[in-house]
Amino acid sequence: GSLINGVNGQHALTFIKMKHDFASLKVNQNRLVDAIHSSSEYGSAHRYGDDATETGMARLSLNDADKQVRDWFKVNVESLGCVYSVDQMGNQFAIRPGKNSTASPVMMGSHLDTQPTGGRYDGILGVNAGLEVLKVLHEHKFESEGSIGLVNWTNEEGARFPMMAVASGVWAEAVPLNKAWNLAEVSASEDGAKKTMKEELERIGYLGKQKASYKEFPFAAHFELHIEQGPILEMEKRKIGVVEGAQAFKWFEITVRGRDTHAGTTPMNARMDSMLCAAKLIVQANKIAKEHDGLATTGILNMQPGSVNTMAHTVTFTLDIRHKSDSELSEIEKQCRAQFQYIAENDSEKGCKLEWNELVNSPAVNFHEDCIAAVRDSAIEVCEDLPQTSNDGQLWKPMISGAGHDSCYTSRRCPTSMIFTVTKDGVSHNPREYCSPEDCALGAQTLLGAVLRYDRLRAE
Amino acid sequence: GSLINGVNGQHALTFIKMKHDFASLKVNQNRLVDAIHSSSEYGSAHRYGDDATETGMARLSLNDADKQVRDWFKVNVESLGCVYSVDQMGNQFAIRPGKNSTASPVMMGSHLDTQPTGGRYDGILGVNAGLEVLKVLHEHKFESEGSIGLVNWTNEEGARFPMMAVASGVWAEAVPLNKAWNLAEVSASEDGAKKTMKEELERIGYLGKQKASYKEFPFAAHFELHIEQGPILEMEKRKIGVVEGAQAFKWFEITVRGRDTHAGTTPMNARMDSMLCAAKLIVQANKIAKEHDGLATTGILNMQPGSVNTMAHTVTFTLDIRHKSDSELSEIEKQCRAQFQYIAENDSEKGCKLEWNELVNSPAVNFHEDCIAAVRDSAIEVCEDLPQTSNDGQLWKPMISGAGHDSCYTSRRCPTSMIFTVTKDGVSHNPREYCSPEDCALGAQTLLGAVLRYDRLRAE
Ligand SMILES: NC(=O)NCCC(=O)O
Ligand SMILES: NC(=O)NCCC(=O)O
Repeated sequence: GSLINGVNGQHALTFIKMKHDFASLKVNQNRLVDAIHSSSEYGSAHRYGDDATETGMARLSLNDADKQVRDWFKVNVESLGCVYSVDQMGNQFAIRPGKNSTASPVMMGSHLDTQPTGGRYDGILGVNAGLEVLKVLHEHKFESEGSIGLVNWTNEEGARFPMMAVASGVWAEAVPLNKAWNLAEVSASEDGAKKTMKEELERIGYLGKQKASYKEFPFAAHFELHIEQGPILEMEKRKIGVVEGAQAFKWFEITVRGRDTHAGTTPMNARMDSMLCAAKLIVQANKIAKEHDGLATTGILNMQPGSVNTMAHTVTFTLDIRHKSDSELSEIEKQCRAQFQYIAENDSEKGCKLEWNELVNSPAVNFHEDCIAAVRDSAIEVCEDLPQTSNDGQLWKPMISGAGHDSCYTSRRCPTSMIFTVTKDGVSHNPREYCSPEDCALGAQTLLGAVLRYDRLRAE
Repeated sequence: GSLINGVNGQHALTFIKMKHDFASLKVNQNRLVDAIHSSSEYGSAHRYGDDATETGMARLSLNDADKQVRDWFKVNVESLGCVYSVDQMGNQFAIRPGKNSTASPVMMGSHLDTQPTGGRYDGILGVNAGLEVLKVLHEHKFESEGSIGLVNWTNEEGARFPMMAVASGVWAEAVPLNKAWNLAEVSASEDGAKKTMKEELERIGYLGKQKASYKEFPFAAHFELHIEQGPILEMEKRKIGVVEGAQAFKWFEITVRGRDTHAGTTPMNARMDSMLCAAKLIVQANKIAKEHDGLATTGILNMQPGSVNTMAHTVTFTLDIRHKSDSELSEIEKQCRAQFQYIAENDSEKGCKLEWNELVNSPAVNFHEDCIAAVRDSAIEVCEDLPQTSNDGQLWKPMISGAGHDSCYTSRRCPTSMIFTVTKDGVSHNPREYCSPEDCALGAQTLLGAVLRYDRLRAE
């Protein structure tokens, strides 16, 4: 019988059947939380409180701390008897063989890189929860139907190399390998040069030989536990988000070219002030996004030459736009392109020139119904013994992700879905990002149940 | 009889008298232009044409190229028999003794530092013209009444250390020595640290022992030749600007503090987006300045942490505002302060915090009537043999400087005025900045005549 469907009666049936099979497998909350914090010793930064764990993270992809946590990951999965490998993008794979070890593995995955002012949960929770699931299976000598594995994806954040999830993108053959390898970091390293991903993979010893492709390394499915990064679960007093998809987004790098002249002797109407033009564009993008109920963000802006009394000849800034609907996102982009052009030509005195460079194009994603059902059924089981806090008595909720994830790329090549946990004040990409030990464990338990349900399903 | 007055009859009289004394002293145009370009070999950058001289400059104050051109300056003035000294701010002084060498010298001065994308004339013309005047006096063994000298002021541009004319400011006791010494460069050096002026003075060997003060080293007067940096002389087909003063300006560093959160999961109305707030402030400052017929420029903007999908928690930007009138400039500042506060609190969703730091406060300056008259009389003489190109037949013009200059500080402590030359297309702080060889020589000749007139005047 099928595990997945929208009919309530069948749900209950499936659920009871599953319960009997592996209800005794429980994640160890303390061990999980200890692992989160001990892995966070590599790259911890931005202390905000006295407790040892009260810091954020600055583990930018492929920096020294990222090398250290990768080494830690390898030691951990090998100690659990997993088969370990690294591909050309530095993605780390750990496979725990099942009864039938010829079939593709059911994978758990997330990332260990962080934002420059990141927290201890974004990505880190997902990888550690996967590790905790492997530990539970290991200590129970549990025999899964097929193999079950864990992947640490490289540069998910796109914070150092400005394409989010670029390495799962290469695996999905959505991003060409050379484009990814040649991606330069957003700000120069100490020696003044902008390093590429390939250079840094080589430097830290994580440029693997294994081809980065779903064809070389196919998955039966991909499950990702992640903090919600938004306020909804907390506000509604729920515990688990059953993630059905992700909103659409695009990243652009926009260059404004004007002319560098003297701030004291160049009349306003003789100026080609690229900074003033860029400021108008940023204000306008936010206005357009708001009118369409979407989002717009400029997180990086650089200007040249950078002198108090000289106008910039060149300003480069990033624009991140998002919307739940692909067509509304297109509309936001279209209006930005038209209105930016108008502002540059007609509302910037002597005019400025614009160039657009698309960095990321991530259409809206719908996850796979089988994976969604596995997560939902697992969430129902996990939530049933908890105090009922929400208004409607349901502690899990179907959700759409505001952030992009590696799961967006895996879902192009294998059944995929995600699990969200409560995020304090909805704050993420910030050192104070927080998910309580209890919520981390509920998420990991849901992951365990979803993976084992799916493992059973694919064997049937 | 007095050299200076506004009555035409007396002018002519003075003029004729002077003519007889040193009309035979002529600057050497080729030698002057050769010196400009050979001194510009140190720090040349931004090639825009094939000719050897078709580059701009990147001789930021106290960098290696600035050390080299300082060494060049020293060798040159010493070969002319000048007494050479360096003060605590690295200002270089060269004095050519006159008949009465106990009196304070009449000084010529400008600067050899440039903008990051600067040209070959801003400052450089003034120092080289002063050097050319000294060469003419030397080769004619001319005996001036008192001493005549030349000064190369440190960090006039304020491009590397963000206080323009800071070293003449210390000389004038308008800027405390320690404040100047501790000024940090605007962007970090290659080793990642922001160097201070004192560190860099020491590093390049130009931290002199002589006290930087007008009390220690008084001037009888200060004359500065400079390119106009604006389009007026060229447009009106005139040759020499008789500079009667400079407009008021202020420099600020403004910090906007918001909160770094996720670009995909933080609703617009939950944001404290410091970049969006800063963009609104920049647009508003320009609007306010324009309404008051003033100027506003943001030449530097830095943001932290700098990641595509994370809002900046902090944006720091500079604001340079200018107006001919002190009271109008105050009004611009007042409106900026009030409206910035309103935007930060009420038009930035959850709000941002602002901090203002004043870097430079340069009130409107009126130069000294004696020096203005010396320049005007000299300009009349220089212009009289030239083809009459302007509509009203006058080739010189009284002007107000849009830029600040070291002369603004010297004028607090000694009679001061300036001479302007034609600037191609009015473009300055740009590699293509240009003043023709003929115009450079006309300016230098005017400088020579003004200095000798003033030398005679002060002896009487
Ligand atoms: N998980 C996460 O924050 N990823 C960053 C990708 C995005 O910008 O949405
Ligand atoms: N000469 C010159 O451009 N100085 C810079 C000072 C100013 O900003 O006005």
